[in-house]
Amino acid sequence: MTRVQIIFLLFTQYCYINTYVLLNKNDYSECVLDPDLLNEIASYKNVTDTIMSEIINNTWGKTMYDEYTNFIDKFGARPAGTIVLENAIDHMINLTKNYGLNTVTTEKVLTPHLVRGSEAAVMIQPRLKRIAILGLVPSVTTPANGITAEVIVVRSFDELNQIDEERIKGKIVVFDAHFTTYGETVAYRVAGASRASEKGAVASLIRSVTPYSLYTLHTGSQSYGKNVTKIPTAAITHEDADLMRRLQNEGKTIVLTIIMHSTINFKISRNTLVDLVGRVNRDKHVIVSGHIDSWDVGQGAMDDGGGMFISWFAPVIINKLNLKPRRTLRAILWTAEEPGLVGAFAYLKRHMDELDDINFIMESDEGTFEPLGLDVAGSKNAICIIAEILKLFSPIDKIKVSNSVGSDISIFNENGVPGAGLLNKNDKYFWFHHSDADTMNVQNKNDVLQCAAFWAAFSYVVSDLSVDIPRY
Amino acid sequence: MTRVQIIFLLFTQYCYINTYVLLNKNDYSECVLDPDLLNEIASYKNVTDTIMSEIINNTWGKTMYDEYTNFIDKFGARPAGTIVLENAIDHMINLTKNYGLNTVTTEKVLTPHLVRGSEAAVMIQPRLKRIAILGLVPSVTTPANGITAEVIVVRSFDELNQIDEERIKGKIVVFDAHFTTYGETVAYRVAGASRASEKGAVASLIRSVTPYSLYTLHTGSQSYGKNVTKIPTAAITHEDADLMRRLQNEGKTIVLTIIMHSTINFKISRNTLVDLVGRVNRDKHVIVSGHIDSWDVGQGAMDDGGGMFISWFAPVIINKLNLKPRRTLRAILWTAEEPGLVGAFAYLKRHMDELDDINFIMESDEGTFEPLGLDVAGSKNAICIIAEILKLFSPIDKIKVSNSVGSDISIFNENGVPGAGLLNKNDKYFWFHHSDADTMNVQNKNDVLQCAAFWAAFSYVVSDLSVDIPRY
Repeated sequence: MTRVQIIFLLFTQYCYINTYVLLNKNDYSECVLDPDLLNEIASYKNVTDTIMSEIINNTWGKTMYDEYTNFIDKFGARPAGTIVLENAIDHMINLTKNYGLNTVTTEKVLTPHLVRGSEAAVMIQPRLKRIAILGLVPSVTTPANGITAEVIVVRSFDELNQIDEERIKGKIVVFDAHFTTYGETVAYRVAGASRASEKGAVASLIRSVTPYSLYTLHTGSQSYGKNVTKIPTAAITHEDADLMRRLQNEGKTIVLTIIMHSTINFKISRNTLVDLVGRVNRDKHVIVSGHIDSWDVGQGAMDDGGGMFISWFAPVIINKLNLKPRRTLRAILWTAEEPGLVGAFAYLKRHMDELDDINFIMESDEGTFEPLGLDVAGSKNAICIIAEILKLFSPIDKIKVSNSVGSDISIFNENGVPGAGLLNKNDKYFWFHHSDADTMNVQNKNDVLQCAAFWAAFSYVVSDLSVDIPRY
Repeated sequence: MTRVQIIFLLFTQYCYINTYVLLNKNDYSECVLDPDLLNEIASYKNVTDTIMSEIINNTWGKTMYDEYTNFIDKFGARPAGTIVLENAIDHMINLTKNYGLNTVTTEKVLTPHLVRGSEAAVMIQPRLKRIAILGLVPSVTTPANGITAEVIVVRSFDELNQIDEERIKGKIVVFDAHFTTYGETVAYRVAGASRASEKGAVASLIRSVTPYSLYTLHTGSQSYGKNVTKIPTAAITHEDADLMRRLQNEGKTIVLTIIMHSTINFKISRNTLVDLVGRVNRDKHVIVSGHIDSWDVGQGAMDDGGGMFISWFAPVIINKLNLKPRRTLRAILWTAEEPGLVGAFAYLKRHMDELDDINFIMESDEGTFEPLGLDVAGSKNAICIIAEILKLFSPIDKIKVSNSVGSDISIFNENGVPGAGLLNKNDKYFWFHHSDADTMNVQNKNDVLQCAAFWAAFSYVVSDLSVDIPRY
């Protein structure tokens, strides 16, 4: 297996969003925290209010939002392996220094680099129609003159399984899986090509993973299974998936020609570490993070420009306000999240001996819409403390509990590091995700400021608290 | 002026949706209709209920919806001047005969035929970014190697007027007009190029005319004013308009390269007339209509496949139910509405001597979502009768009153023919209008059946009523 295969196989294990258990405050009735700790947490109310207010009501929030907008407008899409991404990383390093923090370092990461070539599809039977496609990553190329084959539309893996191999062999399989949750539906993006290939298909297409479409294409990573013949694979729109299903239902023979000429090579990128060094224990870390890379479509404003920016801003604003937490508050701008948590895996490998020193790890990679609270992975005791801290931020005090949260940080959770993702009102997140519609138009300034304020203030409390967040 | 210019100039007079006055039933308290007429109208309740029920509850509606879906899936986009449109017209002629009506004829129409060539734009300063564009129609081509020029973004014609010519000269004007109503905002699509050209611009772009965007492009017709230098003109997305406005606000110099190579020629198309011949006065007509052509983007399912189909269906189903109205009920499938009401103008010209015989003219070209009632143009007395007939269809009994309604039929209204458009719950109409998102996915089967049922039953009553709809 190539390195790419390994990375993508690993990714498939982590890319599913877990089923959440939403807890309300009554669920914490059995939490018994030391009265001193309760008092200590309550004593942060003034400082958290100050941090929030400095960001929301003073000029700090506006400044940050302007820097964020400027960053997205200046660099746009920042795919892993590109010069644009490296320039964007340099920009953030300089910005950090300009805002008064010189403790910014980078760590090299080898990343796959997609070079998206021509991608086109045409339905040639029962009539001529352009079918908009957007390749999944990685996808092998087609022969130079494309693949021309009959289409078979299936709703699910179960439906595929029930069809004789003879009927699949030599065909293009269209997975017309309707969106339920991202976790469920993304399975068709990740494993569709392999499952189709196993039954002899020559290419596979998926209905774009989104609940809503204006003839909108959504890309994303996929993974070829071990020993399967690699076949070209791409996303199509809801509209064309529905068209082909109707044509099939009417007994029509559907023939497509698909041409895909993208390639992948390898480049060096960097994780960026911004430290506000701890005043008591500099080797203990609270990590707050987002990824700086994006897909090549859209502008990566939502995924994950917003999350990256509010995470970068946490140590910057805490430092500006002359607050010195006990532990080091480290912002990490992950590189190469989109091709498979590449930056996060590199960091985990490099810092495996220091995992015990990561007190808590946070990530915002599911939108910076109206903040609601946190999605937490950790022991019961950890969650009791987090819930108590969240009382400082009411009404931003909702908790979801999962085994692992986020994308990049999920691999840390699974190595025993407690952590949290930003819970926010992201109902429409997947309307924009991995598409040309991921732009600054998605963002609401006030919501982003609320997220930034909550994120900075919460991370300050955790990094300053006298007790560590307890592990399992 | 060329014929194209004339057509487009004429269109600009009619393409604005009028300001509506919504009336409720109390507004008709002063309507004094003859008691016999009131009784006569009320007596239609059984037959309208039967027609509605046959369509909604019996298999007729399902059959029609299947034919509609099949039509859209079989032909897709049907731009004026194309073979596809002519094939689609032949299909409807055959379908009419298959459904038992042989009184179907066509009338030839000379129409402009857009041949959309390459269309591309790239922002080359302050950074490289693809700018998605979709040419307006007609647009002159750029030189072979495109136009490269600085951009100036304006919000409105007023803002443009306040800028010195020197600052516009040689530039590309971006009209970043935010959607208010279609009638207001479409002014930038129709007249933007001319207004920009008058001040020396070398090209113009408009923010797509829609209230919502997922990086979505919307085309449409425009008109070069008399004596202006014709400059290339296209639509861009909300997202890119906002990006360029922000860059301009930051003092950045924005440079675009635009390449547009579309051309227009002329072809023969046909209006299609489907007659259910009147049992008493065959020369008196009630016309029910929609247009069969569409833009080249999308599938023309909403604009105006739905409206065309329910109008075609009215005489077909009335005939199937063995009902014989007094007057001839004529369905017209207009050709070449999109390039400027070309089919409607041809019909008006050809039948100018028979306008007095058009008792009432109906059009559905603003969606076939949940039906609400009618948008009526006519005398007070006409509206009183229409309102009385609508009582048969409660709750589909809302009335809006305008000077002229619809698009194709507006030119008949303005020649004194009373008429009505289908009022329906089309809040999202402009999300899809003139874009790739105009597909069968927009349609809800039950809503279309409700529209078809109301449309057929209402047109039957008007064509059968003992009195004519009174004129001004």
